[in-house]
Amino acid sequence: MDNWLPTLMTATPTEGRELAVMLSCMAIRSAQPDATVRDRLRSDYAEDADSLIADSQVVATNFATIAAANEHWRGS
Amino acid sequence: MDNWLPTLMTATPTEGRELAVMLSCMAIRSAQPDATVRDRLRSDYAEDADSLIADSQVVATNFATIAAANEHWRGS
Amino acid sequence: MDNWLPTLMTATPTEGRELAVMLSCMAIRSAQPDATVRDRLRSDYAEDADSLIADSQVVATNFATIAAANEHWRGS
Amino acid sequence: MDNWLPTLMTATPTEGRELAVMLSCMAIRSAQPDATVRDRLRSDYAEDADSLIADSQVVATNFATIAAANEHWRGS
Amino acid sequence: MDNWLPTLMTATPTEGRELAVMLSCMAIRSAQPDATVRDRLRSDYAEDADSLIADSQVVATNFATIAAANEHWRGS
Amino acid sequence: MDNWLPTLMTATPTEGRELAVMLSCMAIRSAQPDATVRDRLRSDYAEDADSLIADSQVVATNFATIAAANEHWRGS
Repeated sequence: MDNWLPTLMTATPTEGRELAVMLSCMAIRSAQPDATVRDRLRSDYAEDADSLIADSQVVATNFATIAAANEHWRGS
Repeated sequence: MDNWLPTLMTATPTEGRELAVMLSCMAIRSAQPDATVRDRLRSDYAEDADSLIADSQVVATNFATIAAANEHWRGS
Repeated sequence: MDNWLPTLMTATPTEGRELAVMLSCMAIRSAQPDATVRDRLRSDYAEDADSLIADSQVVATNFATIAAANEHWRGS
Repeated sequence: MDNWLPTLMTATPTEGRELAVMLSCMAIRSAQPDATVRDRLRSDYAEDADSLIADSQVVATNFATIAAANEHWRGS
Repeated sequence: MDNWLPTLMTATPTEGRELAVMLSCMAIRSAQPDATVRDRLRSDYAEDADSLIADSQVVATNFATIAAANEHWRGS
Repeated sequence: MDNWLPTLMTATPTEGRELAVMLSCMAIRSAQPDATVRDRLRSDYAEDADSLIADSQVVATNFATIAAANEHWRGS
């Protein structure tokens, strides 16, 4: 198995948000491995307010996990 | 990478809510970088009760993360 | 900035629920500042079962945050 | 204010589930105070699979809060 | 009151998942007590991808609560 | 009962994500045991942006539980 997610630790909340976005994309990729289909769907959801909001909910949930992993970067 | 989110710490819950709203907007921006499209979509969702409720769910999830980061501002 | 949310502390779970409802309303207000539009939309969602359920999900998420802030009012 | 929610403490998880269901109903009541409208809507959502699932999501979120309040009834 | 949920403790994560599924079903039962209606609706949602996904979200939320109750079965 | 989920412990976050995806699939399997129906539905949801996003929300919720179980792999 390709160890694509070796750690949840990031240096800053900014990197934590980037990782949360990546995790959201990877979940979609694992449900739909075909890049051409994903690209076609991208133009659907990127022009639909409700889809964009639903996507930002996934990012928010993943970010909560990454923030907890990094103890909310309190020390940094 | 532009370190647009250096910390989750805020002085008050009010600022925490503002940050939660900002995080929600930034997630939409990262999924749809084109400002003209976002503006067009804004008029859709800002006039749709279900979209506004879904958006407030994202803010609530992000606020939970920020509140935990700030130990719920118990000390303040 | 108007410090409209100075604290998450409340005396009782009842007040915590009221604050959770207020937070949900404030999120909608920040996404749609126009009161006339919000009033018009209110009659839509207040007569739609799925909208009311989605709204109660936002209240439940905000209440979880407020309950954690108040250590679930165990002491009270 | 009627202190309708004096505590989140319950003797058993069963009572915790009942309280979670009550909290979900109270949120709908606060968004739609008119009982005749709520009764009319009830027949809509109680015969719709997706509405029932969305409602059970609200109960699950409220139950998580009540379970945490009661330290998951580990002692009981 | 029938104490149908005496505890959240389970011996294994497998039993925890089974309990999470049961909690999800019980929430639907409490919103729609009529078994004939539930059976009719079952054939709707069991053949609808979005309904099945929404249902699995409820199970995931309930499972998170049960896992926390069992300290994630770290000891087992 | 087949103990298909003996533990939530995984060596890495990558394995934790794989387990979260598996849990999401198992929830759908328990709601719809018929593999032919599931395969037919798969082609629906795998070509629908909103369904894929909803699915990734379930994975994110399950991943949060698994990450907490593994103390966010801080030690690894």
